[in-house]
Amino acid sequence: MTRTVAELAALLGARVEGDGTTPICGVAPIDTATAGHLTFLANPKYTDRLKDTHASAVIVATAVVDSLRERRLLPRGTLIVHDDPYYAFLRILVLFNPPPASPPPGIDATAVVGQRVHIGERVHVGPHCVIADDATVGDGSVIMAGSYAGAKTVLGSECMIGPNATILRECTLGSRVRIHPGTVIGSDGFGYAPIGGKHEKIPQVGGVTIGDDVEIGAGCTVDRATMGQTTIGRGTKIDNLVQIAHNVQIGEDCIIIAQVGISGSTKIGDHVTIAGQAGIVGHLEIGDNAVVAAQSGVGKSIPPGTVWLGTPAHEIGLQRRIYATISSLPDHVKTIHALEKRLAALEEQLAARIVPPTKP
Amino acid sequence: MTRTVAELAALLGARVEGDGTTPICGVAPIDTATAGHLTFLANPKYTDRLKDTHASAVIVATAVVDSLRERRLLPRGTLIVHDDPYYAFLRILVLFNPPPASPPPGIDATAVVGQRVHIGERVHVGPHCVIADDATVGDGSVIMAGSYAGAKTVLGSECMIGPNATILRECTLGSRVRIHPGTVIGSDGFGYAPIGGKHEKIPQVGGVTIGDDVEIGAGCTVDRATMGQTTIGRGTKIDNLVQIAHNVQIGEDCIIIAQVGISGSTKIGDHVTIAGQAGIVGHLEIGDNAVVAAQSGVGKSIPPGTVWLGTPAHEIGLQRRIYATISSLPDHVKTIHALEKRLAALEEQLAARIVPPTKP
Amino acid sequence: MTRTVAELAALLGARVEGDGTTPICGVAPIDTATAGHLTFLANPKYTDRLKDTHASAVIVATAVVDSLRERRLLPRGTLIVHDDPYYAFLRILVLFNPPPASPPPGIDATAVVGQRVHIGERVHVGPHCVIADDATVGDGSVIMAGSYAGAKTVLGSECMIGPNATILRECTLGSRVRIHPGTVIGSDGFGYAPIGGKHEKIPQVGGVTIGDDVEIGAGCTVDRATMGQTTIGRGTKIDNLVQIAHNVQIGEDCIIIAQVGISGSTKIGDHVTIAGQAGIVGHLEIGDNAVVAAQSGVGKSIPPGTVWLGTPAHEIGLQRRIYATISSLPDHVKTIHALEKRLAALEEQLAARIVPPTKP
Repeated sequence: MTRTVAELAALLGARVEGDGTTPICGVAPIDTATAGHLTFLANPKYTDRLKDTHASAVIVATAVVDSLRERRLLPRGTLIVHDDPYYAFLRILVLFNPPPASPPPGIDATAVVGQRVHIGERVHVGPHCVIADDATVGDGSVIMAGSYAGAKTVLGSECMIGPNATILRECTLGSRVRIHPGTVIGSDGFGYAPIGGKHEKIPQVGGVTIGDDVEIGAGCTVDRATMGQTTIGRGTKIDNLVQIAHNVQIGEDCIIIAQVGISGSTKIGDHVTIAGQAGIVGHLEIGDNAVVAAQSGVGKSIPPGTVWLGTPAHEIGLQRRIYATISSLPDHVKTIHALEKRLAALEEQLAARIVPPTKP
Repeated sequence: MTRTVAELAALLGARVEGDGTTPICGVAPIDTATAGHLTFLANPKYTDRLKDTHASAVIVATAVVDSLRERRLLPRGTLIVHDDPYYAFLRILVLFNPPPASPPPGIDATAVVGQRVHIGERVHVGPHCVIADDATVGDGSVIMAGSYAGAKTVLGSECMIGPNATILRECTLGSRVRIHPGTVIGSDGFGYAPIGGKHEKIPQVGGVTIGDDVEIGAGCTVDRATMGQTTIGRGTKIDNLVQIAHNVQIGEDCIIIAQVGISGSTKIGDHVTIAGQAGIVGHLEIGDNAVVAAQSGVGKSIPPGTVWLGTPAHEIGLQRRIYATISSLPDHVKTIHALEKRLAALEEQLAARIVPPTKP
Repeated sequence: MTRTVAELAALLGARVEGDGTTPICGVAPIDTATAGHLTFLANPKYTDRLKDTHASAVIVATAVVDSLRERRLLPRGTLIVHDDPYYAFLRILVLFNPPPASPPPGIDATAVVGQRVHIGERVHVGPHCVIADDATVGDGSVIMAGSYAGAKTVLGSECMIGPNATILRECTLGSRVRIHPGTVIGSDGFGYAPIGGKHEKIPQVGGVTIGDDVEIGAGCTVDRATMGQTTIGRGTKIDNLVQIAHNVQIGEDCIIIAQVGISGSTKIGDHVTIAGQAGIVGHLEIGDNAVVAAQSGVGKSIPPGTVWLGTPAHEIGLQRRIYATISSLPDHVKTIHALEKRLAALEEQLAARIVPPTKP
């Protein structure tokens, strides 16, 4: 498929700078794009790359173009100027790479569907799936091969599950929820009571509730609540191999990156970002818009809007000073030893040489 | 279902303080309980919560009630007094939330069962399971949909597997073992020999032996031994996404929390606790009753009964002092710089001002 | 099966020291071997163990034997002397423990195979597998029960997949690739564009390309590229529960140990070792032959051939000095306080006692 820059700009309602007849046959990242590719620049920090890219055209933010022109730094070449280059690029990316067709509606002959199951319209249930008794699957949802939906699970409409995902009994998913392969929703929380020197299992009788537009990556585990619900709020996106323990409450529009672990009963606000491999202990509160940096270990609640780093985590300003100090610790210790020597010398000198003060 | 406090206390052989006719219709955690709920208080540190809870009644330890009464701090309200409040609460929790009925005995028509397989009585084998040749499944065990038991695997009685769990050839599970979804038992150990500049695979010809009453969470991986057995001792409980490498030996009644990694041939004693995201290098010994705190990195063997924290891990007392010092490191460095200046000033002062000692 | 030492040595083209008639019935590690076992010693550091082992014979490197003899330290007992003891041991290990027979060729009746699928000769497709449309499976490959190969996936010859593994659409595997159970290849990269305050999913239209002789452990996740390919180079070995993000490029013959996470677009050279639980942030370059130690957090690119440790990671020499200093930090702080006191005393002393310099 080929489109001219002018055709693409028209589709986006965008302005063209340069040659609108330039043919475009695909999209690529700015550093690997070649002739025929359209790319995009969102971050004004990287305007240098405009000069270096081999792309035939670039989608750029109006503000960036204006600022470059003012400073007479606007490079030659063809630009598509749009207020929201992310949005514009996504539209063109999808135009050139239409998503693979959804699997056709229908329940595969090898799927096993229980009793009193309610399956909506246009639903795909793939080979070897199991939908247990009393489950509900909303319109347009796709459950791929080998996935399991336990008794009384509820899936909203337009969900996308699996393959080989596991949703255990009595878990509830909103609409447009995406669960990637191998992920387990509703495994038992990790709770034992110390009885007679043994670990006696505490029955985990709660469930998991997942809001609309949540996406959960591959290989994750989300435990059901001991009592009540483990909840993941609308719009939150979770990467791969993330552990969410029982009774955790996650707010809306959070970003949780790979291999994070969140311990039991911790409450995460809205718009929180938790970077890769970070761990958060149980029964804490992480305020709205807070950020936890990668590999951090959070042992205390975090106020809204703050950024935390390190193990144990400190606010990022302090932690950066700590890291800077740590890098030069061996030098500081040398300084301490040098000070000790100089001080001892001085003490000796004084003991030996100073005349006593004259008596009054 | 509703029961009076007196009825519940009778069931437990417990004493009632307050109004035994109070109706109870469910259980809940002390901070979210509302009218009609029974809750419990085990930890004497949190006796304050007795005043604040909205629960209609609370299970409390005899010792706590006695101590509060002595100090005239016993709040009003209805109490069920029992020597072991954990145990009492578990019994009432199960009373109000009976576990979901076990799946009915029988082998699903879609399951594939190999030759010379021995399946005990009252066993459930779910849809799309595979039980390979020469496997044994003990009485009353449940293997849920999509799970795989390899050739010559042995499962004891009353085990609970899956769905979508994988137990590879020649692994042996005791009785009442629970393996959660997505978990893999008996994957090849990670062993290569450096031959001719390549990594040549060392065949992993050992197995995995899991004791009675072990529970292993979702998404875990337990590698088979290179030679001999990887072992997990009776009563040990393992959370989600935990990695157990080849030839690891884990003792009895251990608690291993999510995302822990234990490297090859390490030997863990009995009653050891390893908290979330901790890592232990290979060929170490972790003594009985030792505790490894969350995110710690253990590079040396640990004596019995000690508590370790940090990366690299130190005993918790030292590590807490280190952490306290680290938090104030930038201040200490300022102090060092200030000392340097004061010392230099002193040195200068002395050089300039001190008269030599009078000669004798 | 029993063989004499002489028979085994003949098989290996190796020399015997001691009694060639010694019967051997199996192999074992040097510290657990008993009578009848053959073991091996590769590392000259551990020659002490030659004296202590209960094995009936030991495979030892020619160089080690020569050196021990020179120093008159060669212990009694039967040795098989070979230039490459690793190689020799592997051959004998396999002799006594032949790998389980490959599952028989054929497509299980319960497998679901799509349209236009090309399946080579001697291929095994296990129960409940799904091979989607337009997939290719090379000669001699084994796909175990419950595994999924998406549309247009390509598997080379002699691959070994699953059980319960998931390879999503349009991923390409070379020959002799091993993918262990529960692993997911080709899950969507974690990419969202901030549009109107929401996280808008960036379609992940790229794929995953895996070279010949790659092995990927259980429970891993390898994301497809946003555009282009996530690649894993020939001969690289990956342990369990490892996360490889979108557009990561991994070179040849790398070793990546359990629970490592590699963030998006990072480029790993050849022969790189990344130890357990380490994390590498996105868009970095890790040079050939570099080593990242366990639990390290790498935030900057790493030159070839260097070894890095810690969070944030430093070169290992510096980091070891830092760790040594950190262990004694509380002592250093005491020294600082002591210095402060001594300095203050000196200052006071000087202020009180020093006579002013005589005027000139």
